[in-house]
Amino acid sequence: MATGEPIAIAVDLGGTQFRVAAVTRQPLILHRVAEPTRADAAPDVVIADIARAVSDVCARVSRSPVIGLGVAAPGPLDHVSGVVFQAPNLPTWRDVPLADELRRRTGLPVLLGNDANLAALAEARCGAGRGAEHLVYLTLSTGVGSGFVVDGHLLLGKDGAAAEAGHMSLSLDGPLCGCGNRGCLEAYASGTGLVNRALEAIASGRASNLARHGAALDARDIEAAAERGDALAAELIEEAGAALGLGVRNLLHLFNPEIVVIGGGVSRIGAPLWDPMLRVVDSDALSVYRQNLRIVPAALGDDSGLLGAALLVHEAGPLLANQLEAVRR
Amino acid sequence: MATGEPIAIAVDLGGTQFRVAAVTRQPLILHRVAEPTRADAAPDVVIADIARAVSDVCARVSRSPVIGLGVAAPGPLDHVSGVVFQAPNLPTWRDVPLADELRRRTGLPVLLGNDANLAALAEARCGAGRGAEHLVYLTLSTGVGSGFVVDGHLLLGKDGAAAEAGHMSLSLDGPLCGCGNRGCLEAYASGTGLVNRALEAIASGRASNLARHGAALDARDIEAAAERGDALAAELIEEAGAALGLGVRNLLHLFNPEIVVIGGGVSRIGAPLWDPMLRVVDSDALSVYRQNLRIVPAALGDDSGLLGAALLVHEAGPLLANQLEAVRR
Repeated sequence: MATGEPIAIAVDLGGTQFRVAAVTRQPLILHRVAEPTRADAAPDVVIADIARAVSDVCARVSRSPVIGLGVAAPGPLDHVSGVVFQAPNLPTWRDVPLADELRRRTGLPVLLGNDANLAALAEARCGAGRGAEHLVYLTLSTGVGSGFVVDGHLLLGKDGAAAEAGHMSLSLDGPLCGCGNRGCLEAYASGTGLVNRALEAIASGRASNLARHGAALDARDIEAAAERGDALAAELIEEAGAALGLGVRNLLHLFNPEIVVIGGGVSRIGAPLWDPMLRVVDSDALSVYRQNLRIVPAALGDDSGLLGAALLVHEAGPLLANQLEAVRR
Repeated sequence: MATGEPIAIAVDLGGTQFRVAAVTRQPLILHRVAEPTRADAAPDVVIADIARAVSDVCARVSRSPVIGLGVAAPGPLDHVSGVVFQAPNLPTWRDVPLADELRRRTGLPVLLGNDANLAALAEARCGAGRGAEHLVYLTLSTGVGSGFVVDGHLLLGKDGAAAEAGHMSLSLDGPLCGCGNRGCLEAYASGTGLVNRALEAIASGRASNLARHGAALDARDIEAAAERGDALAAELIEEAGAALGLGVRNLLHLFNPEIVVIGGGVSRIGAPLWDPMLRVVDSDALSVYRQNLRIVPAALGDDSGLLGAALLVHEAGPLLANQLEAVRR
């Protein structure tokens, strides 16, 4: 008999692992599992793995009513139809009807969201921006993701494709981004951006200790080299910080938020990245945007997507009532 | 006796003239007046002029109940307290409690909004974007103003200072903007930006027919010179279009709107500005944002601020109920 408080089952689907958790409304994670994502297998195989893990987690909270399944997925997706168009690091995924498939296999209503959007929601509800009505969230990782909370709600846009601040261009002549455009924030301030710019500088003859890593170079190598005094590495991190600062400044002018939350592995570089970022923000001639503004590190770490997916279900009433109705039918 | 349909009195406060109109919910302008703004006088003098015009307009619609006064004002303002911090072209205006003063003099509840935000609202409700839930509005005039409709509501931000796309920077090294920052969209694509860039090019020795205008050069001279084949003028308009295109592209990535509405005097340059803008937008590698997207000229012309101010009052229930309550108390 279901006697406990309502539970959302949350899934965070990543390229190397997926995680499933039972989460209260608070939100409190009662039970969780993590399993490797079989990224090279067909999507059906991965979906079956997830469904099995969901059943296992449900069994562990069998005294509580499970009200739905929330899924944080990477890449472009349709949050209304529940289709994942594409997923970075999951090469076989094209137009996968993830919500339908999971609903069929688990019997639960399923809501789907972009992982960065859901992380923004989680940071606004129970993280670094707890209680914020106007929040800008950026995650600096392999790419740059973002999510915006406006008047307490996620900004999703016409197709759910809003909030791609990583692809805000800061210069038509800037470095080439993975998306095909030039000068995107992601081309400067993501792990991929840092690595690409380093490889390009080395290829053009710039001396740097980074050269010894060859094509295996990653963002952590650049961070470590900068700490040891490598000029190229330090310069790239400084430029990433300045680009991030310009990006944040633009977002202040557009959204006038009370808080900017910055997370992701690259953000943990700390002062060498944050200081130039803050210098550019502080140099903003439009000082009104800095009044009572906080710019802070994310608080929820790797759990932000999972918690956001759970909140998506718990808040489905105001936020996505139609979809929940649709999947329950 | 008030027997007609509810009427909002709308005020559009500009630097050279102010306009007052009686507007139905539809919205339909029943009666309007325009008077010169005494820009060099004390704010009290202008406010008294406005209050008198409001009384005159009210007298003309005396059979209908007047439910409130909506004011579209330029420059930074606090829509909650109703204070205008500063107003371009009104040099004596600093921290003017415009809503309070108008309420005292007219006895009407007063709601205040930024003119570009209100123009965006009007274009979304009854203009080029009629019925749009996700709309981006840009007005290219002396400066570049903007307004965003998100999920059917104006995005105002923490202090009402959101939606300043004119001060989205497209390059840390770009031309100096009137705001003090560099590379703002406004520094390229506003009348002031075009003129400043032309004067700078001429001062640095660039040959152009524009030189004969001296310091009296204005944006219309640049438009006319480009039509007559002046290379500098054509180049500046082309660059303004490209910058506008990059700005629009960024806003697509951030807001995923269904429609982008572009108005203001500079936008009427037409193809020489719109073509390079559209080329940059069409070159966007992230094609999802262009699906079913419309980019169109504004439809309401000079009336957009006035209609938006009226809509502010008519929609005050859902939009700004608290403020309306506060002013009625």
